Amino acid sequence: MEKITSLENAQVKKWNKLHQKKERDATGLFLVEGKHLIEEALKYHAVELVLYENECPFQNVPTQEVSKPILDKLSSNPSGAEYIGICHLPESIIEKKERLLLLDGIQDPGNLGTLIRTAISFSFDGIYCSKDTCDYLNEKVIRSTQGSIFQIPIIYMDLIDCMNKLKEEGVQVVATTLEHSKTMKEILPQEKMAFVLGNEGRGVSKEILKCADELLRIEMEGFESLNVAVAGGIILYHYRKA
Amino acid sequence: MEKITSLENAQVKKWNKLHQKKERDATGLFLVEGKHLIEEALKYHAVELVLYENECPFQNVPTQEVSKPILDKLSSNPSGAEYIGICHLPESIIEKKERLLLLDGIQDPGNLGTLIRTAISFSFDGIYCSKDTCDYLNEKVIRSTQGSIFQIPIIYMDLIDCMNKLKEEGVQVVATTLEHSKTMKEILPQEKMAFVLGNEGRGVSKEILKCADELLRIEMEGFESLNVAVAGGIILYHYRKA
Repeated sequence: MEKITSLENAQVKKWNKLHQKKERDATGLFLVEGKHLIEEALKYHAVELVLYENECPFQNVPTQEVSKPILDKLSSNPSGAEYIGICHLPESIIEKKERLLLLDGIQDPGNLGTLIRTAISFSFDGIYCSKDTCDYLNEKVIRSTQGSIFQIPIIYMDLIDCMNKLKEEGVQVVATTLEHSKTMKEILPQEKMAFVLGNEGRGVSKEILKCADELLRIEMEGFESLNVAVAGGIILYHYRKA
Repeated sequence: MEKITSLENAQVKKWNKLHQKKERDATGLFLVEGKHLIEEALKYHAVELVLYENECPFQNVPTQEVSKPILDKLSSNPSGAEYIGICHLPESIIEKKERLLLLDGIQDPGNLGTLIRTAISFSFDGIYCSKDTCDYLNEKVIRSTQGSIFQIPIIYMDLIDCMNKLKEEGVQVVATTLEHSKTMKEILPQEKMAFVLGNEGRGVSKEILKCADELLRIEMEGFESLNVAVAGGIILYHYRKA
């Protein structure tokens, strides 16, 4: 294919729209930037096309030469990107359900990225996110997880529906809250467990707390509240399958 | 005092320089923005002067009326601030040394802020930072900790000197690293312990690992590395004084 050099090119305009969640949802596509992230995506057969200027180090994948201004325009990084991958959404099926993480309205991309990394570190089987949780295909999340989003299935759905299904399948659903809750000593590890962490400001929503099998808190002496990614780290470590 | 309205006012220029670490170090002063943070600072008698426009809700503290453009200029927040406090450095003395956190070159203000909050949550006695750790009087750190920097003593010094002194005082110094290290099960809680966490990229530096009494790692099954604030959360929770 011929090198694309015009910022007005229809394809370029389409790719650029992938910075918007709406367009990602509609097309099932998203962008990853830089060599390392494209390599990660390639391992999971998630790359449809690699955009490059001059030379392309990737093989066995469709490529398209473009001009530097196009790469700069498509990059979310102020200093631009050498390569940009157009990827399709990894298919997310959660088969094993021994350890699950449920996220209720996490807003900060950094917190979401950190929680994804932590869930992988402790071999969790999958992550369910409420629909108002920050999009995990947001560039900031992808960058902060360094491509590990491909290593764990992540599904967005109504969390009450999700919890009801999990309970039917024998998964104990544990939601975190400071009030009327048990400590980690009091809630013993079970074969199948799911942990719900809540929004940075309001915590886990009331309906979800009502629907949970158990309410859990982290014992603290100080009066400071924990960052949600730190709370997640402590809980996921404590209840990991050894 | 008369209302200050000129952005060219010498005092305003001086205050504005407090956004720079150099100036904060030279003067011992720093800025806090907004009502909540000023209230926190007032509790610890750390406020020298409050800048306001129109009405000032604070009593028993010197105040100075300024114009809106001056508050906007001094604010690090794009939407400006209603009040700005000129504060002096809280005096940091770490007396009790049962549980200490040592930070070796943490760069990200968000990670530093989160670690400070976590240390307070688990009632740690103080934090020592290497001189190349991000300044805790950086506006982003102050904002992310919501003023809790006043609740725990924080000292910047050479960490090797610090560790040698702590060891003389009978504090067990435990540094985190994945290599040649023991798990949390293997290192039992002691009366006096200090935990060293390292830079986001390189981890704890070699000289510090050599100087430590014990090397500690968090058991993981996955291959993903943990964010330093998450690792800190897990360790500080595990070894907190109950």
